[in-house]
Amino acid sequence: MKKVAIVGVGLIGGSFALAIRRAGFSGEILGVSSSSTVLEALRLGVIDRGATLDEAAAEADLLYLAQPISEIVHTIEALAGRVSPLTLVTDAGSTKGEIVALGKKQLGSSFLGGHPMAGKELRGVGAAEAGLFVDRTYFLCCASEGQLEHPVARELVEFVRRIGANPVFLEAAKHDRLVSLTSHLSQLSSTALAACIARAMDFQSAREGAGPGLIDMTRLAQSSYGLWADILKTNTSQIDEALSLYISELQHIRSLLDSKELGSIFEQAGNFSRYVRKPGT
Amino acid sequence: MKKVAIVGVGLIGGSFALAIRRAGFSGEILGVSSSSTVLEALRLGVIDRGATLDEAAAEADLLYLAQPISEIVHTIEALAGRVSPLTLVTDAGSTKGEIVALGKKQLGSSFLGGHPMAGKELRGVGAAEAGLFVDRTYFLCCASEGQLEHPVARELVEFVRRIGANPVFLEAAKHDRLVSLTSHLSQLSSTALAACIARAMDFQSAREGAGPGLIDMTRLAQSSYGLWADILKTNTSQIDEALSLYISELQHIRSLLDSKELGSIFEQAGNFSRYVRKPGT
Repeated sequence: MKKVAIVGVGLIGGSFALAIRRAGFSGEILGVSSSSTVLEALRLGVIDRGATLDEAAAEADLLYLAQPISEIVHTIEALAGRVSPLTLVTDAGSTKGEIVALGKKQLGSSFLGGHPMAGKELRGVGAAEAGLFVDRTYFLCCASEGQLEHPVARELVEFVRRIGANPVFLEAAKHDRLVSLTSHLSQLSSTALAACIARAMDFQSAREGAGPGLIDMTRLAQSSYGLWADILKTNTSQIDEALSLYISELQHIRSLLDSKELGSIFEQAGNFSRYVRKPGT
Repeated sequence: MKKVAIVGVGLIGGSFALAIRRAGFSGEILGVSSSSTVLEALRLGVIDRGATLDEAAAEADLLYLAQPISEIVHTIEALAGRVSPLTLVTDAGSTKGEIVALGKKQLGSSFLGGHPMAGKELRGVGAAEAGLFVDRTYFLCCASEGQLEHPVARELVEFVRRIGANPVFLEAAKHDRLVSLTSHLSQLSSTALAACIARAMDFQSAREGAGPGLIDMTRLAQSSYGLWADILKTNTSQIDEALSLYISELQHIRSLLDSKELGSIFEQAGNFSRYVRKPGT
């Protein structure tokens, strides 16, 4: 792996460039983005050179697609028939079913879907940092590490480890079910909470009655729909199922409000919440 | 107001004692609690002297009940007929309907319900701090400040302001509806989220798929049922109604997953969430 092209040099793409550089990657890093982003990325030392997608496809050993989901889809379409079998294309999209199906169809074994569970409130290459992936799960859409055949895919996994992330190998459908519960449901439960209170009372009263709990529970509700529309559109059935499970749980709790049986639900919820906070292994 | 008795010298009661002392209260502060708590509170300089409830009722101008809700109820029963009309009894319970109805019945105009929107993860007098109420809402169960007739009640409001809190005057039923949405619903939505994911997958996979959003959304789910049983029991109908509104909002969102109409719900939720974060007025 001598040349890497980052397609979409934003928070994630820029952070991946900085992270592999810090982890010892000594080859060239190309950036495919708008001209203003390329200039900023050059100024910040995130990439070595701007390139077109055509140039990147012809030169790079690894194409790292770090765009919004709908743009990743367009890029894969554009790359069809223009990628050498020795090149690997990977992506960092938050849902995997649609992207992996298209990648396999258009690029065959040159495609490996990925999803780093990293991010922060700020966006853009200016917010990129080499440590963004440290101690984070990095999903790779493959049943197991042993099934990775592409030589660059094996190098990619090595770099995932060297940048401090924990590679987890999971097929696209299983990934999408998992994150529908651990990520997408969190977003919608926060959005629904804020929207429902906003509808039920005036904002001033809500602020008077707000404690630290409400502040935590409505942080995600500040996310813009623009970021979420693609995710909701490409993982609709799993998110629908996750919402159904959540609504059932709330109905169950509602039926037990004055019963001591609610204690065992609090206990299970507490055990789970403490477990997901412990350092992973 | 020359003598104050804190009944239940824990986080809230202890913090109130420290806060009024720092705000210039120069009288004596009695503590009514278990003997071990009284010893710790004396050692920490939170109270001046331990007392029985009888002694406190006979001597203090203000009795500040900072116990769990069910114990506040018992204390009010025990105080019936033993409080001078010149003494004020107030409390710091998280629900107000039942407590205020009982207080008015047993103590008449000597009772004024209260609820400081303050707290933290730690409990007990060892966690008490003078600054706990700064910039927090302090509910007082009265339609308006002008309706406060008891002289000690007017002194209490003065101290609420001097300890940095914002007094908000609200009748018990309105208070209970307000906090069912801003506080109790937050707790149950977090508990339900954690319980539903715990049921749907193994904990290890959930940890692999957990991002900062899930960590935020399951923080409250770590609360113990012991703390919540009294709240749920004494505000059941309002909490039931709040859950009903929340479930309806989730069903509405579920029906719009692949529709751009969801954008306006995100926008409203975002506006609300940003509003409750702004410093209050």
